[in-house]
Amino acid sequence: MNDAVVIISGGMDSTVLAAYVKDLLPPDGLVHGLSFNYGQRHFKELGYARRNETLSSWTEVNLQNLNPLLQGSSLTSPDIEVPDGHYAAETMKQTVVPNRNMIMLSIAVGYAVSKQSSFGVWTGVHAGDHFIYPDCRPEFIKAASKAASVGNEGFWDTVGKLQAINAPFSEMTKAQIVELGTQLEVNFAQTWSCYKGGMIHCGRCGTCVERKEAFAIAGVPDPTPYEDPIFEVAAFHG
Amino acid sequence: MNDAVVIISGGMDSTVLAAYVKDLLPPDGLVHGLSFNYGQRHFKELGYARRNETLSSWTEVNLQNLNPLLQGSSLTSPDIEVPDGHYAAETMKQTVVPNRNMIMLSIAVGYAVSKQSSFGVWTGVHAGDHFIYPDCRPEFIKAASKAASVGNEGFWDTVGKLQAINAPFSEMTKAQIVELGTQLEVNFAQTWSCYKGGMIHCGRCGTCVERKEAFAIAGVPDPTPYEDPIFEVAAFHG
Repeated sequence: MNDAVVIISGGMDSTVLAAYVKDLLPPDGLVHGLSFNYGQRHFKELGYARRNETLSSWTEVNLQNLNPLLQGSSLTSPDIEVPDGHYAAETMKQTVVPNRNMIMLSIAVGYAVSKQSSFGVWTGVHAGDHFIYPDCRPEFIKAASKAASVGNEGFWDTVGKLQAINAPFSEMTKAQIVELGTQLEVNFAQTWSCYKGGMIHCGRCGTCVERKEAFAIAGVPDPTPYEDPIFEVAAFHG
Repeated sequence: MNDAVVIISGGMDSTVLAAYVKDLLPPDGLVHGLSFNYGQRHFKELGYARRNETLSSWTEVNLQNLNPLLQGSSLTSPDIEVPDGHYAAETMKQTVVPNRNMIMLSIAVGYAVSKQSSFGVWTGVHAGDHFIYPDCRPEFIKAASKAASVGNEGFWDTVGKLQAINAPFSEMTKAQIVELGTQLEVNFAQTWSCYKGGMIHCGRCGTCVERKEAFAIAGVPDPTPYEDPIFEVAAFHG
């Protein structure tokens, strides 16, 4: 079937991705959204994924029982503070969850095979993720896609029209994703970035700073209300 | 640390694997057992994994909530009958859970990174699994190991002494695994194979037939009580 599985967090990148994949599929192709709740602090994003109208179906996978196994990250360990500051700063390495992307992709690939989704699995990783997350780099996506193809022969080799795993934003900056989303008429007010999970975006954490910066560079008005709208990106550029 | 993570089901292969890895590690090296319960019918195996005395720790990962996502297998869908007969028969393809091995390996790799286990992840897949399970073949293990290395650089590239994912039985038959286990003084009475999960092994299902055959070929006395001890392997060889 001309369907695709999109890993969607409810953030900007994956919301643009869902619109991008919908646009790319044949008219009968469905976009199946798959979200992962692994006890991360930003689970508020998932509500935005659930309400995403581009998706034909949405499924939440609860992986919170993996939490005790995957230590060493402020996103899963409640005793580690989420650092403020620019996303690319060294302290943001605390947000690495060991092998997180490979775990999510593996489940998504199994789901895609089960749903006979010949357009494969899509992930919104982008160039800005590369510095701290090795499992967001193109060479990782390529290796994981190869493993998925080899491990599911009889499916991807015969039905698959694209790669098993596709990361079209892999060489794009977040600002370029904002530009693309604007062309695709994505409503960015219906996306969530903040790692702190308050009522509105905090404006100080790594992803909030990155979000502000992306709109600024793209020259697109930022529709996001922030608790701290004036917290400056520049201060973290030295 | 000189530790290793062994994926252990409580079956023959992974029980021999745990003994093999323990034997291979330096004296201070610990074997961490990781078992997966994904709603399969043979969860009885897990009790044998839990009681395995070679392991320094044992952790069960409950993936039953993935069950609705990974359809098309008699191991996870209660409305599909487990077929009787030889493991390599076409009907055994019903027991394929889409991408199961990649999902388990991805979680095990994350766990190994989290536990700083420099001796990596070990899986007991063997030559007899290749025909029906593409994700048990050497080329899949190689591709998945590459993805794990690339996706966790800074760990495997600097700490890792072996591959990220190791499958030492990959080219061995089950009979050869029985021989190796006998050398390593594995107590095969403390392992479980039957897919039907009764009080004792049924003796008729694919894995029971395969188990009997392995002991017969290896010339090792089979300590297993079967409900149907005379159900013949030969009948399924044509």
